Amino acid sequence: MDDLLFPAEARTRAIARELYTHARNLPLISPHGHVDPGILAEDAPFPDPARLIIVPDHYVTRMLLSQGVTPDRLGVPRIDGGPVETDPRVIWRTFAQHWHLFRGTPSRLWLEQTFKTVFDIETPFGPSTADRVYDELAARLEQPEYRPRALFGKFNLEVLATTESPLDDLSRHAKLAADGWGGPGGRVITTFRPDDLVDMDWPGWAARVAKLGDMTGHDTTTYEGFLAALAQRRLDFIAAGATCSDHGHPTAATGGLTADEAKLLFERALHDGLAATPDGTPIIPGPPATPAEAEAFRAHMLIEFARMSVDDGLVMQLHPGSSRNHNAALFRTHGRDVGGDIPVATEYTNALRPLLDEFGHDPRFRVVVYTLDEYTFTRELAPLAGGYPAMFVGAPWWFLDAPEALRRWREAVTETAGFYNTAGFVDDTRAYCSIPVRHDVARRVDAGWLARLVAEHRLGLDEAAETIADLAYHLPKKIFRVGQS
Amino acid sequence: MDDLLFPAEARTRAIARELYTHARNLPLISPHGHVDPGILAEDAPFPDPARLIIVPDHYVTRMLLSQGVTPDRLGVPRIDGGPVETDPRVIWRTFAQHWHLFRGTPSRLWLEQTFKTVFDIETPFGPSTADRVYDELAARLEQPEYRPRALFGKFNLEVLATTESPLDDLSRHAKLAADGWGGPGGRVITTFRPDDLVDMDWPGWAARVAKLGDMTGHDTTTYEGFLAALAQRRLDFIAAGATCSDHGHPTAATGGLTADEAKLLFERALHDGLAATPDGTPIIPGPPATPAEAEAFRAHMLIEFARMSVDDGLVMQLHPGSSRNHNAALFRTHGRDVGGDIPVATEYTNALRPLLDEFGHDPRFRVVVYTLDEYTFTRELAPLAGGYPAMFVGAPWWFLDAPEALRRWREAVTETAGFYNTAGFVDDTRAYCSIPVRHDVARRVDAGWLARLVAEHRLGLDEAAETIADLAYHLPKKIFRVGQS
Amino acid sequence: MDDLLFPAEARTRAIARELYTHARNLPLISPHGHVDPGILAEDAPFPDPARLIIVPDHYVTRMLLSQGVTPDRLGVPRIDGGPVETDPRVIWRTFAQHWHLFRGTPSRLWLEQTFKTVFDIETPFGPSTADRVYDELAARLEQPEYRPRALFGKFNLEVLATTESPLDDLSRHAKLAADGWGGPGGRVITTFRPDDLVDMDWPGWAARVAKLGDMTGHDTTTYEGFLAALAQRRLDFIAAGATCSDHGHPTAATGGLTADEAKLLFERALHDGLAATPDGTPIIPGPPATPAEAEAFRAHMLIEFARMSVDDGLVMQLHPGSSRNHNAALFRTHGRDVGGDIPVATEYTNALRPLLDEFGHDPRFRVVVYTLDEYTFTRELAPLAGGYPAMFVGAPWWFLDAPEALRRWREAVTETAGFYNTAGFVDDTRAYCSIPVRHDVARRVDAGWLARLVAEHRLGLDEAAETIADLAYHLPKKIFRVGQS
Repeated sequence: MDDLLFPAEARTRAIARELYTHARNLPLISPHGHVDPGILAEDAPFPDPARLIIVPDHYVTRMLLSQGVTPDRLGVPRIDGGPVETDPRVIWRTFAQHWHLFRGTPSRLWLEQTFKTVFDIETPFGPSTADRVYDELAARLEQPEYRPRALFGKFNLEVLATTESPLDDLSRHAKLAADGWGGPGGRVITTFRPDDLVDMDWPGWAARVAKLGDMTGHDTTTYEGFLAALAQRRLDFIAAGATCSDHGHPTAATGGLTADEAKLLFERALHDGLAATPDGTPIIPGPPATPAEAEAFRAHMLIEFARMSVDDGLVMQLHPGSSRNHNAALFRTHGRDVGGDIPVATEYTNALRPLLDEFGHDPRFRVVVYTLDEYTFTRELAPLAGGYPAMFVGAPWWFLDAPEALRRWREAVTETAGFYNTAGFVDDTRAYCSIPVRHDVARRVDAGWLARLVAEHRLGLDEAAETIADLAYHLPKKIFRVGQS
Repeated sequence: MDDLLFPAEARTRAIARELYTHARNLPLISPHGHVDPGILAEDAPFPDPARLIIVPDHYVTRMLLSQGVTPDRLGVPRIDGGPVETDPRVIWRTFAQHWHLFRGTPSRLWLEQTFKTVFDIETPFGPSTADRVYDELAARLEQPEYRPRALFGKFNLEVLATTESPLDDLSRHAKLAADGWGGPGGRVITTFRPDDLVDMDWPGWAARVAKLGDMTGHDTTTYEGFLAALAQRRLDFIAAGATCSDHGHPTAATGGLTADEAKLLFERALHDGLAATPDGTPIIPGPPATPAEAEAFRAHMLIEFARMSVDDGLVMQLHPGSSRNHNAALFRTHGRDVGGDIPVATEYTNALRPLLDEFGHDPRFRVVVYTLDEYTFTRELAPLAGGYPAMFVGAPWWFLDAPEALRRWREAVTETAGFYNTAGFVDDTRAYCSIPVRHDVARRVDAGWLARLVAEHRLGLDEAAETIADLAYHLPKKIFRVGQS
Repeated sequence: MDDLLFPAEARTRAIARELYTHARNLPLISPHGHVDPGILAEDAPFPDPARLIIVPDHYVTRMLLSQGVTPDRLGVPRIDGGPVETDPRVIWRTFAQHWHLFRGTPSRLWLEQTFKTVFDIETPFGPSTADRVYDELAARLEQPEYRPRALFGKFNLEVLATTESPLDDLSRHAKLAADGWGGPGGRVITTFRPDDLVDMDWPGWAARVAKLGDMTGHDTTTYEGFLAALAQRRLDFIAAGATCSDHGHPTAATGGLTADEAKLLFERALHDGLAATPDGTPIIPGPPATPAEAEAFRAHMLIEFARMSVDDGLVMQLHPGSSRNHNAALFRTHGRDVGGDIPVATEYTNALRPLLDEFGHDPRFRVVVYTLDEYTFTRELAPLAGGYPAMFVGAPWWFLDAPEALRRWREAVTETAGFYNTAGFVDDTRAYCSIPVRHDVARRVDAGWLARLVAEHRLGLDEAAETIADLAYHLPKKIFRVGQS
């Protein structure tokens, strides 16, 4: 029996093994993530091992950067189009030479298990076996059973949600629907993520708002038109299977503006953002709103989106607390979303109060709140989720999606919120092939925690078995409203 | 042997068992809690199971609310007097149907152990046995050995402190004293909690200050009279057995005002608060002080109360960090203290500095500081308690009074503050029947932690045995100055 | 086999034992600490047991103070020269009577192991054996093999870094160099710690800046001269073996001023600080800068010191987050650095951004960041160190240098930063005789953590063995650039 991640103590380990059998074969629900839907729409073979495993995985590239190996050497594209390493085998070897950096990290665990369980490679990975693993993996990628859709079945995935901007034309999801893979109740669905239309201080905001108007036919130069256009795109997303919206804000702030104030701010900022000289040069070079105004507008829009959720049923997900593009040098060379973000302390109790005041008891509303700040688990998130019907605690995210952090999360949150105010595991990944492994890790950690409760006579074995199945499958399915169409 | 909560590892468990024998039969000291003294003054039989176990326990009702079961359905009285469920068996069944929500929570543990050890019910509780347990419990409640005073003996309680406002007439404690149960050195004593006279932003403040004047004969329209009246009530409370005061403030702030500033603020706010039109309508509809003024006055009053403690010997307890009545909907329907509070981040190092500057080395002064914010354990609370003679760290409180949190507390605090700068377990409960169980849980957790120290050769078994007895009995008795008259 | 601190679970303990053998006999690298270099320069016998063990150890004296035993009774010198206990045996007995206070603390562990492994005393220490241990220890101290330099060899110390102000004449290090013990690549080296020249609000700042001018011949009344003088002292320190600078600031703030602003602020504050009446009385009684100005100047100077590091190669160490001299009464009677400091919440993500923006990718620059605030481990420190080549996470410090905190540190930091972005153990002590014990504790804790990874099939035994040796020896040697001349 494979005891990966189970507690070493014999009595507890035996219980964990037993509990794990109740979860291991349940289908995977992946209600939130960043897989490119084109992968499944096209179902093309994956490229070489380096471009599959290393280049797009910023967990991997940031660790190597932390020891002086630049993203250029790993083939990560530069935004200036400058030269980067292109030989996949060179990239692979550079990575392998630094394999020791990953000891004790989840990347190590995910990669090892991905090689083994997804790609059926028995050779242990390391500097001395790098070429051999490369060759074996490259050979697998040519076989039809390792294409994306085939793997979907192998993964035992039931539902996979991707994440798109309201400006996405959803053509890939249309292709998936045409193939019988997408649409409401489908296997691959989308998620509505409007940050780029809500963040006034994200360069190009006003132009994107204008584009939203073009897409929808609403006059988005008015606040009312802007809201109407967003509401319409939500319906379009729901038609493409969406059951959730997602919001990645710097803070968890909600509320604070009246509708009139929001209208005034929106229209003034949009006007400034769109204003240009006759030759098209923007008159205002920077963002059209101060940081405080941008933050106030984001906080206000969460209330508006909650109001829309009451109408259309999309479950709101909130991912606050990341200082985006902290690594300025990396941002200059490689742009956004390449591992340069760093968490900051995040406040929830006061920040969420306006949202919960207005919608916290509404049975039509649901919000799943995530954190990068584990030092809010017992003080804020568990008490809030344990006190408001509308709120659930999301699984530990990003820097916290690893075995020890998952364990600490359960140990911290359960006593106040129980198991049933948590939303189940969410992989949140763009690394498609790591999905089954990540879920398996979460199931194993839950097995270990539940086993401890049983071993210490705090829970019956039968109840623990029911609980682990709920956490692995039934809870996320219900809370994220997937598979219900 | 019952191994509840002991570590599963065999060597450690055997030591924990051994250590637990040194604590399990020691009398209970309950130096801080919220049991209604009328229960023991009247010694009436408890009402039905629902009104004993569910209706008044906001740990239970908030968990059910978090899953959409309203307090109305659980029989919690509305402040508008509107209809709520009154059939105890219906309430009981609703609760039982949601029993799975409590898996892994302390409520589950306390309730199971209360049924078993307090009420001698062997039937395991659950949805399918709910009626049977109800009947058994209802039958017990009719028997004299399950009346409050009889249970007091069964619990092996030595001292139980309740908590009252200075405006309480202490008549229930007078009855207890008359029956040989109360008064200085008695079994049931009171605690002086003046928040309602110190919080200018608590509606009705000025009227309560006026009532304090009526009760004491001091002119509480002056600041000097206000202080004198409070000092006199402290003596009245001491005559009713009090050994402690208790202060539940939003923050841990102390000091900041001169006596002159405090006098000015107090008298201005009181004047505004009492001012009324000829028909009695208050002229100022809201609180008579700004939030900042109210906070400054609270911070100042802790210095004044510390000064009084130096004179009269009451041990100060400080419970900061709760955002009261966060759940606005719940507050509107059911009022205060029904589970709608949520913790906020709490700062101690700077906040307590004025208090510790002035009294931190005074052997007549003692302050026990609690927290809802465990993310201060190693950074602030342990270093402060490990550096000032007057300060002790209170046991984890409220959302943190559970096995995992208690374990984390010991693991975090001991290395800097040791065991002897902690105040021992405090149950802080209004659920009278859960008292023995809560203390038992704390003793078991301490046994587990000490067992680990012994198993890892960090402490001798004899020392650990002495320590667990100190933590369970001798330390709280000494620190809270109970049983010394 | 001695299982001190190893996990009790048999499988894990066996692995921990095995791993520990790979680290236990490796030489000690002590790249940061506060041992008086005169101890090794003079190599005089240590004084009596009380003056060796109790009087200078503020971990010990603050714990006794926390229970009302004043530093006077323990022989700690008063700054007013007032009388304190002088009889070492009386001090020793007072300490022994309070031995129970140290149960579960690292002081207990360090002292027991120091008695046993450094001084070869088999008698267990306690109130009843205090005199016997005193006599045995006193006898040892008279023997040549217990003199400082002999112990250096017994400790298996390879390098010991002390910490000095730029105003120190480094005469003790000159003596050590003359004896073949010091200088670049030597056994005892210095560290450049310029806080007293950078903290405008530290009384006497302007006079110290003037003294720096006298020492170096630079005109430190100008900002340019001040920087040049500091740069020159860094070279002097490097000649005395220094490989690091160290900076103990209230916060981690960096950057914020232009060079012009810094010049203006420095010269204005220096002028005010030096201004005096004809009889020499300073015209400004307090600090010559506001707290905000002093903080801005410190933040700015970290950028300047980083710039110097790029030139001269000194590794920057940053120790933020201590509220110095919190205990006002203790400060009045006994001065600085006697255990009266308390940590405060510390922010890193925004604070370090200017420093990392400018130097975070420069291979010539390196900064090791410490914390007293463990509630930043996963949120800030691990992500930062796991993302910037120049930054490493320093070992848990001061209140956190104990087994449980070390364990939590590894469990928290490893998943995001791995092992190789941490700087290895740092003892940071002024208690010379505790050095080997402190390192041994860290090695044992690392053995326990790595053993858990192995037992849970997360790491191979061979890799874990390599890792523990890296953590114990190779990493600190490399990161702090010691032993490389």
